[in-house]
Amino acid sequence: MPRAPDSLIAISLGDPAGIGPEVIAKCWDHREEFNLPPFVAIGDGRSIAAIWDGPIEVVDDPRQADAAFDYALPLIQLSAAQSDLPGHPSVAGAHCSLDALELAVGLTRSGSAAAVVTGPVSKEQLYSIGFQHPGQTEFVAERCGVAPSNVVMMLAGPTLRTVPVTTHLPIRDVPDALSASLIESRGRATLRGLQRNFGIPEPRLAISGLNPHAGEGGKLGQAEIEVIAPAIAALAAEGWRVTGPHPADTMFHARARAAYDAALCMYHDQALIPIKALHFEDAVNVTLGLPIIRTAPDHGTAFDIAGQDRADPRPMAAAIRMAAENAIVRVETV
Amino acid sequence: MPRAPDSLIAISLGDPAGIGPEVIAKCWDHREEFNLPPFVAIGDGRSIAAIWDGPIEVVDDPRQADAAFDYALPLIQLSAAQSDLPGHPSVAGAHCSLDALELAVGLTRSGSAAAVVTGPVSKEQLYSIGFQHPGQTEFVAERCGVAPSNVVMMLAGPTLRTVPVTTHLPIRDVPDALSASLIESRGRATLRGLQRNFGIPEPRLAISGLNPHAGEGGKLGQAEIEVIAPAIAALAAEGWRVTGPHPADTMFHARARAAYDAALCMYHDQALIPIKALHFEDAVNVTLGLPIIRTAPDHGTAFDIAGQDRADPRPMAAAIRMAAENAIVRVETV
Repeated sequence: MPRAPDSLIAISLGDPAGIGPEVIAKCWDHREEFNLPPFVAIGDGRSIAAIWDGPIEVVDDPRQADAAFDYALPLIQLSAAQSDLPGHPSVAGAHCSLDALELAVGLTRSGSAAAVVTGPVSKEQLYSIGFQHPGQTEFVAERCGVAPSNVVMMLAGPTLRTVPVTTHLPIRDVPDALSASLIESRGRATLRGLQRNFGIPEPRLAISGLNPHAGEGGKLGQAEIEVIAPAIAALAAEGWRVTGPHPADTMFHARARAAYDAALCMYHDQALIPIKALHFEDAVNVTLGLPIIRTAPDHGTAFDIAGQDRADPRPMAAAIRMAAENAIVRVETV
Repeated sequence: MPRAPDSLIAISLGDPAGIGPEVIAKCWDHREEFNLPPFVAIGDGRSIAAIWDGPIEVVDDPRQADAAFDYALPLIQLSAAQSDLPGHPSVAGAHCSLDALELAVGLTRSGSAAAVVTGPVSKEQLYSIGFQHPGQTEFVAERCGVAPSNVVMMLAGPTLRTVPVTTHLPIRDVPDALSASLIESRGRATLRGLQRNFGIPEPRLAISGLNPHAGEGGKLGQAEIEVIAPAIAALAAEGWRVTGPHPADTMFHARARAAYDAALCMYHDQALIPIKALHFEDAVNVTLGLPIIRTAPDHGTAFDIAGQDRADPRPMAAAIRMAAENAIVRVETV
């Protein structure tokens, strides 16, 4: 089978009752303004037709999508048992969102698409049909044969990239969840991702402290001395360009950001507060450590506004653009 | 004694070996560009002359400062036992910084100045001369006869104001340090400060969660359910406009910020990361809950760059402007 054009992006629609179909259709509408490469949507076309009256071209194979993209939104149709109303998720819709994810990842693994962008799913809905993974990221990792602990979530915007070392933990559990080896492995995966996905030959990683003022020499906590500094020393000993532990509050202004390619943060909000404060409309969730390129917009299904023509397509557009850019880097650096 | 012009600001120079003298002199240089009201500097003039060759007019009384301000930087001279070199703090300089703080606060309490702006001091230096307070804020509170627990630190920039409920604590100690009564008292002080300092009759306060996703309904921590939500309910029952607990990562983008007048945050970095990411050059430290107006630039002595003409005066200028604006609000709402 001939490979698809290197720039073709496979996009799973996500939950058909969420805003995924709407933002993807809007991306096609604005494909020139947003400077988007050809993409193919994967899911139940009825969820798009319910909220959009633009042209859809059903294709059987990604190879047909490239030609169709100029005049219609190319779609690989997956039939759900029933058609969801926007804002009203169903078990059938959850199955459809999982099938779309699986096919989009499969097409990318096989080389039929250059990268995969995943639309927003509902974890609650997926759990109700027996989905065993914490989220789409871990599912993608498994399908790619990578241990979930070896992939990292990066939030990437135009002037800042952040990676949280720990993610969905209560603040109370964060200090004990941190270890030098965890910080090292997350740091290494981030640095390699900056090389492989972003084409930065000698990436610079800034590593935050955990406590206010990065612990102020031990007066405001021991994690910086006992855990974070040793991890930084170990990464530096491997030849990586790493700095820290930095006080988190002074890491994210413009001049500070210019000094590194990514910030490794100790917990969820330390990484997500600055990226969303600075780049709410165009922050992209990038999964590093996979054999394929996978990005996602950094928002959820937003069932509460689905079907009302209120969803902002810019985060999805940013995710598509970044997937294409990363895919080009991968091809050039193979 | 006639009162000084309502807009006269008293500024303590801070540590004479730090960047305080430099940024204050630069503010006088750029007083028109920065749109600054008349101010009088208080401290050892030798620390200014060491790094600046502009005109200084020594005055005995704030009443003389207003007239002098057009052609010289008005200064109330405090003699230190020795003159410090920039970047080389001394015990004599620490004493001088404390005397300047005391006089600046005293002049403001007596009505001879409309507000006080405090230059950066070195806590280490102050501790070495027996200073008993955690910082300048607590000293000012004591001089004003207010319990330190009743004043709150606000970080205020052009599009965001944040207040941390807890400040210099290791992250590990934050969850147990939070209580509904602490959040209520900080919230109340913040709301009253928005009325009294900023002239907002019906202020809106957004209160953050502690944990990722504001605890996600208890799955990622209990603080939101057990501590924060009850505090919000109590404040709302008093008639205040309060919302939350909000996920901290989605509180600080432009649209979110437009929905409140201040954000009450659970810990130091949750409040300081967004304000410094968005407003590093013009975030002002405002002390709420005092009978006087007190602001400060949100930076330290920066001994490492003192005397090198590298210090950015914009944070000091922002602190002076905000002090003047708040003072006008106070006068109008008395």
